[in-house]
Amino acid sequence: MPTSTAAFIDRKIPYFEMLSEEALELIEHNAETVLEEIGIDFKDFPRALKLFKDAGADVDGERVHFPRGLCRSIVQASAPSEFTQYARNAKRNVIVGGDRTILAPAYGSPFVRDLDNGRRYATLADFQNFVKLAYMSPGLHHSGGTICEPVDVPVNKRHFDMVYSHIKYSDKPFMGSVTSAERAQDTVDMAKIVFGDDYVEQHTVITSLINANSPMTYDATMLGAATVYAEHNQATMISPFLIAGAMSPVSVAGTVTQILAEALAGMAYVQLVRPGAPVIFGTFAAAMSMQTGAPTFGTPEPSMIVFAAAALARRLGVPFRSGGGLCGSKIPDAQAAYEATNTLITSALAGVNFMLHTAGWLEGGLTMGYEKFILDADQANMIAILLGGVDLSENGQAMDALREVGPGSHFLGATHTQENFETAFYRSPIADNNSFEQWEEEGSLDAAQRANVIWKKMLNEYEAPPIDPAIDEALLAYMAKRKSEFADRNY
Amino acid sequence: MPTSTAAFIDRKIPYFEMLSEEALELIEHNAETVLEEIGIDFKDFPRALKLFKDAGADVDGERVHFPRGLCRSIVQASAPSEFTQYARNAKRNVIVGGDRTILAPAYGSPFVRDLDNGRRYATLADFQNFVKLAYMSPGLHHSGGTICEPVDVPVNKRHFDMVYSHIKYSDKPFMGSVTSAERAQDTVDMAKIVFGDDYVEQHTVITSLINANSPMTYDATMLGAATVYAEHNQATMISPFLIAGAMSPVSVAGTVTQILAEALAGMAYVQLVRPGAPVIFGTFAAAMSMQTGAPTFGTPEPSMIVFAAAALARRLGVPFRSGGGLCGSKIPDAQAAYEATNTLITSALAGVNFMLHTAGWLEGGLTMGYEKFILDADQANMIAILLGGVDLSENGQAMDALREVGPGSHFLGATHTQENFETAFYRSPIADNNSFEQWEEEGSLDAAQRANVIWKKMLNEYEAPPIDPAIDEALLAYMAKRKSEFADRNY
Repeated sequence: MPTSTAAFIDRKIPYFEMLSEEALELIEHNAETVLEEIGIDFKDFPRALKLFKDAGADVDGERVHFPRGLCRSIVQASAPSEFTQYARNAKRNVIVGGDRTILAPAYGSPFVRDLDNGRRYATLADFQNFVKLAYMSPGLHHSGGTICEPVDVPVNKRHFDMVYSHIKYSDKPFMGSVTSAERAQDTVDMAKIVFGDDYVEQHTVITSLINANSPMTYDATMLGAATVYAEHNQATMISPFLIAGAMSPVSVAGTVTQILAEALAGMAYVQLVRPGAPVIFGTFAAAMSMQTGAPTFGTPEPSMIVFAAAALARRLGVPFRSGGGLCGSKIPDAQAAYEATNTLITSALAGVNFMLHTAGWLEGGLTMGYEKFILDADQANMIAILLGGVDLSENGQAMDALREVGPGSHFLGATHTQENFETAFYRSPIADNNSFEQWEEEGSLDAAQRANVIWKKMLNEYEAPPIDPAIDEALLAYMAKRKSEFADRNY
Repeated sequence: MPTSTAAFIDRKIPYFEMLSEEALELIEHNAETVLEEIGIDFKDFPRALKLFKDAGADVDGERVHFPRGLCRSIVQASAPSEFTQYARNAKRNVIVGGDRTILAPAYGSPFVRDLDNGRRYATLADFQNFVKLAYMSPGLHHSGGTICEPVDVPVNKRHFDMVYSHIKYSDKPFMGSVTSAERAQDTVDMAKIVFGDDYVEQHTVITSLINANSPMTYDATMLGAATVYAEHNQATMISPFLIAGAMSPVSVAGTVTQILAEALAGMAYVQLVRPGAPVIFGTFAAAMSMQTGAPTFGTPEPSMIVFAAAALARRLGVPFRSGGGLCGSKIPDAQAAYEATNTLITSALAGVNFMLHTAGWLEGGLTMGYEKFILDADQANMIAILLGGVDLSENGQAMDALREVGPGSHFLGATHTQENFETAFYRSPIADNNSFEQWEEEGSLDAAQRANVIWKKMLNEYEAPPIDPAIDEALLAYMAKRKSEFADRNY
């Protein structure tokens, strides 16, 4: 593969600041008004109510009203501006926050799709395939979490297999289960088998996705998982998840206001559970089609939301998660690519630190696409180059090449060209830039058909990263024991 | 169509400045070194040599060496920072430069492609179809120029038909012929029939594309056309056209240095011909595949070139042209869309004032695609919204909606939603965001197939903008007379 295999992207270019300071201050002011006047519900979770009350909030039933600035001051008092998520291969450790960007696969699809078999429910084999593909993709820095739902495993046991697959088939950092506090604890326990008990308490080895129940609500499931991870010093991305127009106002500024209020309240809760536990300000926002009610992606309004939220996270001083190859298309066609690129590129320029859903996303997240994954991973490679900025070294300036060639000639044989051509420009493994005639001769394949060849070749060539056999056995034994302790259940 | 029909985009968001002041100064310094030390060739065009010599340059044969700062000072002394290109419908007048963005169709393809008939040589009928489609596309502000080559008309006469078609089938501003001085003059003469002799001398009604013969060379054809337009106060975009690695160094900084040097020399020439004649700093840069020699598009390096060149144009104080829906793909597939979006969105954020090639481009510019045109025009609509920025009015802030709905409910029925839903979020006419089941029921169409339906419907519903019959007759009479004055020729 043509790109570097850096563990993460160290950004060398500025952020694109779409909004002025004054605009961001206005949104911050409005978010504090939401927290103070309207409040946030914490459902079925007395611990959150108690912690907030003790911290000075006004708790009325399950509704919490926050004095202006309270959440912000709690977050800023202890939330780290950046943290390292450790991988079982130290070369894969990622630093989350600051000028870094980490790209991770898509998350949460019940279905998978490929050109050979079309759309079908995902299985554990699919899940493992995507772990392997992410492991082999130099542009992806993270193994992700619920890449797709392994529906052939009972709902209440599949987290074991997902976490085990991330550990076994990759050595990149991974995400944990959030569907209950117990499953979060299982994730931590499995991490302890890999990393050691003390190590896990002192190092962040799991980052997990905690969605708000927008609007302005957190539920017991997500709070339970967030609590377990925070208690063990593991990272959570506190992510308002909303379709603007349905779960937030039908405007960019109103939606961002709500996102900031929700994220502040959620991150403050985590800091009250354990001051200093890593938290990431998350944002997932689609725009609702006002004709059909469907979520839409890759349109300007979600891009503006990401630009605004990224800037607000920077002002707050915490890492930011958003972005990805989002699209509404059912297949890896032009719609998928237009929408995905709009989201990927604006997120990269906005300064997303943790880009979930970078590769594979189809159909509003309902489907994980094999070909889409390969196409998006190619874009991930390119994001690393774009964020690396312009080489202004003497070699980059290329004045000797200009002098050597001069007017009316060409640069193909120039010394500078010969010395730099292998690494100078990105080479996509998927794009076909051959002549029309050659492309036709090779079967007139479209990009998805070429991607189909690539993922099969990758899986064919996959080699697992080494793992200590004693750890592997211990993980398998743990899983077998835990799975035997309760009956299968599909909820 | 869902977007506004503004004559152009009035940008409300900042530019993305990828490079620091120091980096831009370094490139400017290097470009002056190119102009001074290496020089620029002006081939077979004594008038340019004479004008440059009189202005203080060092002319050696056809090679011109410029004292440091000479070209810059010539350009800055008289080139307008912005100008109006007048259209025959005053509502379509565009302001080029400053914070405005103008989107125009692709330019120069010998082939066209559609799903029904595949790839074939373009005809005048195709040309006229694209003029009509651009006229009907609210996101496109300009009718463009050689949208595709009408190869069924002799080479030496097709400029008449192209200019006539722009005037007859659209009322948006258009571009003129540049394939010889004589054809440029024909374009001016036809414009005079439409606008009046005096009006044309006092108003810019034609913008034309003048490519440098990179590296560091201008030829007599392009200089001849540029001279005619400048003498008549008509606008030219002076555009280094290069595939980096072949016609420029295999590096971003080296390529941008060459672009700046070439553009400065070309624009200085225009200002010497007629001080104050509108010029646009143009940039077209692809990256050469070092494996095959083919141009590649939508990769990070050309994006960086656009970011840098746009900033250099701003520092110089002239309008900037670049961008477009560039791609190497032969068909409107995912490759086409990934590459096009990367180019479109980075160009929009960079601050391109005149975006040629916005819609239709396929196969490195060899083919104009009907479906691609429709898909790209949808992106053009979205660029207008993105550049419009975030609405921070009281209505945009939507605090009343947040208060009305509160935690745990939804915004669908909120007063604010009801009042804003029709215009709040962009509605793509092409994207399918329906459920998988509904999409399947409707035939499992991909984006290109849906675009195919749309362009046919548009052409079917097309109504020509009114034109004074006397002007139309005069144009037809002029064309008939001129065409009869010389024999057909296919070069």
